[in-house]
Amino acid sequence: MPRYTAPLKDLAFVLHDTLGITSSDIPGYGDLDPAFTDAVLTEAGRIAADVLAPLNQSGDREGCHLENGVVRTPKGFAEAYRQLCDGGWTALDCDPAYGGQGLPYLMGTAVGEMLVAANMALNMYQGLTHGAYSAIHAHGSAEQKATYLPNLVSGTWTGTMNLTEPHCGTDLGLMRTRAEPQPDGSYRITGQKIFISAGDHDLAENIIHLVLAKAPGGGEGTKGISLFIVPKFLVNADGSLGPRNAVAAGKVEEKMGIHGNATCVMNYDGATGFLVGDLHKGMRAMFTMMNEARIGVGVQGYALAEAAYQNAVTYARDRLQGRAVTGAENPAGPADPLIVHPDIRRLLMDQKSFVEGARAFTLWGASLIDRATRMGDKQAEGLISLLTPVIKGFQTDKGFEMCVAAQQVYGGHGYIEEWGMSQFARDARIAMIYEGANGVQALDLVGRKLGADGGKPVMALFDMVKTLCAETAAEPRMAGFTAPLKQASKDVQAAAMYFLQVAGKSPNDALAGSTDFLHMMGHLCLGLMWARMARAALAALDSGHPDRDFLDAKLATGRYYMARHLPATALHLARIQTGAEPVMALKAEAF
Amino acid sequence: MPRYTAPLKDLAFVLHDTLGITSSDIPGYGDLDPAFTDAVLTEAGRIAADVLAPLNQSGDREGCHLENGVVRTPKGFAEAYRQLCDGGWTALDCDPAYGGQGLPYLMGTAVGEMLVAANMALNMYQGLTHGAYSAIHAHGSAEQKATYLPNLVSGTWTGTMNLTEPHCGTDLGLMRTRAEPQPDGSYRITGQKIFISAGDHDLAENIIHLVLAKAPGGGEGTKGISLFIVPKFLVNADGSLGPRNAVAAGKVEEKMGIHGNATCVMNYDGATGFLVGDLHKGMRAMFTMMNEARIGVGVQGYALAEAAYQNAVTYARDRLQGRAVTGAENPAGPADPLIVHPDIRRLLMDQKSFVEGARAFTLWGASLIDRATRMGDKQAEGLISLLTPVIKGFQTDKGFEMCVAAQQVYGGHGYIEEWGMSQFARDARIAMIYEGANGVQALDLVGRKLGADGGKPVMALFDMVKTLCAETAAEPRMAGFTAPLKQASKDVQAAAMYFLQVAGKSPNDALAGSTDFLHMMGHLCLGLMWARMARAALAALDSGHPDRDFLDAKLATGRYYMARHLPATALHLARIQTGAEPVMALKAEAF
Repeated sequence: MPRYTAPLKDLAFVLHDTLGITSSDIPGYGDLDPAFTDAVLTEAGRIAADVLAPLNQSGDREGCHLENGVVRTPKGFAEAYRQLCDGGWTALDCDPAYGGQGLPYLMGTAVGEMLVAANMALNMYQGLTHGAYSAIHAHGSAEQKATYLPNLVSGTWTGTMNLTEPHCGTDLGLMRTRAEPQPDGSYRITGQKIFISAGDHDLAENIIHLVLAKAPGGGEGTKGISLFIVPKFLVNADGSLGPRNAVAAGKVEEKMGIHGNATCVMNYDGATGFLVGDLHKGMRAMFTMMNEARIGVGVQGYALAEAAYQNAVTYARDRLQGRAVTGAENPAGPADPLIVHPDIRRLLMDQKSFVEGARAFTLWGASLIDRATRMGDKQAEGLISLLTPVIKGFQTDKGFEMCVAAQQVYGGHGYIEEWGMSQFARDARIAMIYEGANGVQALDLVGRKLGADGGKPVMALFDMVKTLCAETAAEPRMAGFTAPLKQASKDVQAAAMYFLQVAGKSPNDALAGSTDFLHMMGHLCLGLMWARMARAALAALDSGHPDRDFLDAKLATGRYYMARHLPATALHLARIQTGAEPVMALKAEAF
Repeated sequence: MPRYTAPLKDLAFVLHDTLGITSSDIPGYGDLDPAFTDAVLTEAGRIAADVLAPLNQSGDREGCHLENGVVRTPKGFAEAYRQLCDGGWTALDCDPAYGGQGLPYLMGTAVGEMLVAANMALNMYQGLTHGAYSAIHAHGSAEQKATYLPNLVSGTWTGTMNLTEPHCGTDLGLMRTRAEPQPDGSYRITGQKIFISAGDHDLAENIIHLVLAKAPGGGEGTKGISLFIVPKFLVNADGSLGPRNAVAAGKVEEKMGIHGNATCVMNYDGATGFLVGDLHKGMRAMFTMMNEARIGVGVQGYALAEAAYQNAVTYARDRLQGRAVTGAENPAGPADPLIVHPDIRRLLMDQKSFVEGARAFTLWGASLIDRATRMGDKQAEGLISLLTPVIKGFQTDKGFEMCVAAQQVYGGHGYIEEWGMSQFARDARIAMIYEGANGVQALDLVGRKLGADGGKPVMALFDMVKTLCAETAAEPRMAGFTAPLKQASKDVQAAAMYFLQVAGKSPNDALAGSTDFLHMMGHLCLGLMWARMARAALAALDSGHPDRDFLDAKLATGRYYMARHLPATALHLARIQTGAEPVMALKAEAF
């Protein structure tokens, strides 16, 4: 069975050495000294490794089942979920006014990585709940907040997001679910929603569904959409549970992975719903959940890669097969461990350099969110808005690729479910699809985010690269980082320039290269993170930091990423510059 | 449920327009006129689409089960397998002396693509049988041939390959299975083999296991290995089935995919075995099966991508979601079909351009095998020996990637098993692993094949590129093909030169880039094929071929591959030239 170990040392290196959070001016960051963050992360890592991880494979095997209208989750999930709630792990960055701990989003993200890595399917129940909490917290009335938030924060109730319908996923304008206003101010919700994660289960007393539906008078397309709270059990005035609402899971889908999470068809049959925020402004409210969910999915990308990588390393060290081409390294044994072979090293270094880069990128992104929300910093808000599709799209594409690479290290055993490596790949696959398929992330990036605010956010990113390169120009040990980074930035700028030139007259020329641009941006951001981590590692080495092995490995891992992955920006640029013609040349009938 | 349509037009284009097989000097090719090949392929395509494809998804769901010592295959598999045998599809390129049809290997490969695409798990039962047939045909005694081949050719019996053991996969020198010589000339085989595809089942009367084991006196490592026939039921002198041999399936593995094929743990408990070929020369005999199997696995790579692609196209045409950015293309409908969106086009073009290129590459490779075996052509033998790891490794890496891309077109539905797209990806995943994991293919390519015969085979490949470019230099319509091809060839030559310079003094520098080289070679070969197909398409257009739409699409698809995929050789070269340092820098403990 796969094992999971919390990457505490690396998390501390990112938070303190690289991001220097304790000295940040973001309100609340001053409290995040190393002793505090270490205490929180150690305890979260313990829950992840000891409580969640042991249920990951059994949850995959057992799956969720609909029995007499109720979904049964795998054995042990309810107890583990209860431990998560009791430990306050579901409430880490929630508002203290409703029972939360009020920690920065950054801390929730760092903890979230470990919970996801240990058991993605189980952690999704609380992930969706957090999204529902955020939507109600941002857009709900005072009464709604009082009614729902304390129980969502404590995890006594869970939440869901209901967008997709059988005929509409990305294109929500096609939505058919209807909301009919009632004399008492509530609405009757009727329609079918699909792919509803955690749609029904036996972990919590009540489930608070956040549902997009069309209320009369809103017009066509997405303009007519509003957001509603539809509780599984209606809530009485005294806060106790009332009658069962007319919403039920019609089916639990059989999926490629995340079997431990119940993906439901939800049928709304005149269910009672309550409007959240303004009528016909549901899309805006839903984006509160969506943006948060996209960061969360980006975390899933590298968290699963981390878990898969850890096991691949163990296998590569233990499995004896063949001899090093440069001479036996385990001459007393029947063969050398796999890890002596260069192509196995390549697979492991790909994983390690991606995961550590993505962790730094994501935690930096989380700090931008804190800066935006806690300080109202518009530049940070613009930047994280630009980077959200990159965190989601790039990290889940690469995260899946790295789970597949980890599986490959196991050879034939990687294909056998007993060894658990297939599950990482199967689970990771969904992250490329949900919360906006990665093609939609690329479209969002090129079609909306790149040109937002006159392109200031992307210019700010280029400036950060420039500043870092200028600041470290005198340090010869940084040359292996800054030279590739400058080139990558140049490539991304050339692509942005190309889009600028063609987008107006021929939008297809821009969109044909959108996924390539998403990946270029991902490489540039990870490259920037690696350069920052290298600078931090050198500073730590120079100041006599005791763990020289860790810092040396950090530098070597970064050099690998810069040498072998950053040059991909040139290929992406070449593809982008071919424009739409090759992509769009065929008539639809010619496929 | 996914559907499958035989790609008859494209197969004919490759065989006749591109490879010009009827006018080839290879013995037997003169009979392969278009009317004949069309008749064979049409009928095979019918069996694939009507008999095998409908059992693909049900076979995946039901899987194989060990019941009272016997493996039960999914419902319908036995009848479908019988139809394959009755139609002579298992005997297409087998020796007429044993009941085969004596057609070229090329035809077996073209037919094989369709059978695999329709139902990979089911087709593996006969694929393994073909490998056993080939090993006995090449290395068995006259008596063994008479005893086993007719029933293997007719499919009355099936075959298996037994190499892997729990502690040894790639490194067969670690093998523990023992063969003890008996007074009657037979051997007693004792040991455990794992990952044995089609190891036990209920499709055939008998199963002929080809087993590698160590007989006394052969020395250490792979030198002591011999090949044995171990029938499930011993065969009496009159050819009837005798007593059950002491071999049994101990377990059917639960795998990520190919659930319809029984992957067994096989226990040999003093089973009676018969030596095939020379004592202690088992590796040589096994390579007969292995090389054939590697081409077969390379076929699986693009065959599954073809099947997945066909369904992705259907979905992209049918699913209405969003509007074309250049203006509605389906204004009467609620939305435009997915296929109007550039990023969906990119996914489809990636798949289409890979599959068609890989089909041409593989069928060309099959013609090289025919040239080598039917004419004793040493140049062809050297070339296919060089290209076999490329066909296996590149095509299965990309084939899996393309199944994932096809799944992505479906959005959320791609993750739900009911839609069948997950299965293509799950099934395709094994092809990157078995018959030598792709890292082993890369090692074989760089460590053995590249320098074989003084590098003549790879020089021959470069010459083919040069010749084609020279021959078409005056044709402006070929410029979009030859310019990228020349550049790719230059990149591959630079990589080969780099390996030549470093391999002797620092083999790790070569091996660290082995997978990159495998992929470069794949791109170069597909580029060469696309240039050949473009030349053929232009010639057909100029000679007034009636199907101009097909030919125009062929040219546009080729231009896409050349513009967007061939430039990857530059990235691979850059990675190769970084050498071993970034890959090997970390101590094993530092991971």
